[in-house]
Amino acid sequence: MKSIRVLHVHVAIVLFLVCSQNSMAHRRSMLSISKKPDPNDAIVTARWLVSQNFWAVLNTISIDLGGAPWGNVVSFSDGIPDQGTGIPYFYLTNLDPTVKNALKDQRASFTVSEYPLGTCGKIDPENPTCSKITLTGKLILVDEKSKEAEFGRNALFSKHSEMKGWPMDHNFQVYKLEIENIFLIDWFGGPKPLTVDEYLKWKGH
Amino acid sequence: MKSIRVLHVHVAIVLFLVCSQNSMAHRRSMLSISKKPDPNDAIVTARWLVSQNFWAVLNTISIDLGGAPWGNVVSFSDGIPDQGTGIPYFYLTNLDPTVKNALKDQRASFTVSEYPLGTCGKIDPENPTCSKITLTGKLILVDEKSKEAEFGRNALFSKHSEMKGWPMDHNFQVYKLEIENIFLIDWFGGPKPLTVDEYLKWKGH
Repeated sequence: MKSIRVLHVHVAIVLFLVCSQNSMAHRRSMLSISKKPDPNDAIVTARWLVSQNFWAVLNTISIDLGGAPWGNVVSFSDGIPDQGTGIPYFYLTNLDPTVKNALKDQRASFTVSEYPLGTCGKIDPENPTCSKITLTGKLILVDEKSKEAEFGRNALFSKHSEMKGWPMDHNFQVYKLEIENIFLIDWFGGPKPLTVDEYLKWKGH
Repeated sequence: MKSIRVLHVHVAIVLFLVCSQNSMAHRRSMLSISKKPDPNDAIVTARWLVSQNFWAVLNTISIDLGGAPWGNVVSFSDGIPDQGTGIPYFYLTNLDPTVKNALKDQRASFTVSEYPLGTCGKIDPENPTCSKITLTGKLILVDEKSKEAEFGRNALFSKHSEMKGWPMDHNFQVYKLEIENIFLIDWFGGPKPLTVDEYLKWKGH
């Protein structure tokens, strides 16, 4: 009986560990995040959404498809963990339509959902209380010898370690979104009034 | 000693149950999905990505922001579970910029990532082996009295149960993307050649 009980303990502990590991990938960004901000605090919510997520959709105007709005899944970072700036940096190759499009027309938007953070619970991703943000502006190549490019690489590599090893001949470079407009939904009642200046100046870390 | 061991078993089992529930939300769509298809099979991978996901980013041309490409987080469904059609249906309100934009210019794209399904494991969301698809075409209102609208509502409500209770005065209606182009990345070497006809005709369920 004793050995059976010990076995039960071990099996249950192993199941717990396996289960924890399985859910780890999905909650990668949750592990270090602070609690979801109060939806009344639009600035904090907006910055939290951008800092805690690590992938989203970057939209440009398609050259190949007659000017259609064209979204692409990309990884990003707005700074090293817990020191986000609110500005999304990307590591993109000119083999990708997104870069080709942006070189012709810089207009772009970047759309981020709360859903991947796991904090929406059972709420539907389209429910306004599961927050979402669209940053609209210009997609710009950061001069690779600048301090900002170094900042961008550190920001990106700290959250996306495999990027360091991406093929040199693909010419990955640091891009950023120069934000001109913010659309934030984090509760009922339509988008929250939020200026780019308010968003960028926040230093509440 | 006996009671301590029993307590250990109970604590470990409770931890396992709590842990399972926590990861449940993130793996909602994984519970019923088949294995990730072979990346060599572009048609099956494309249809799998669209059928297994339940939220993504819908891009339109912004009226308010001078024609900028503008993405919005939306829920969707391409059919009742395990009977997907490949055509994404949406439940949208004209209070939302996406609908306002589409009423002026139907050009749209819809961008879906494999990452939320949990099948990318530790691979970065931008790594080409973590697949992604962008469907480009026209965002169209489905006649609400048509059989297709009934199909769309069933498809949507089967995956998004709370939609049934969304406020009547918000005028939610069924929209669909009429697909004209498919961009699929599911491995190294650039987008897979895949026609809309091949994609829509597949009936491999």
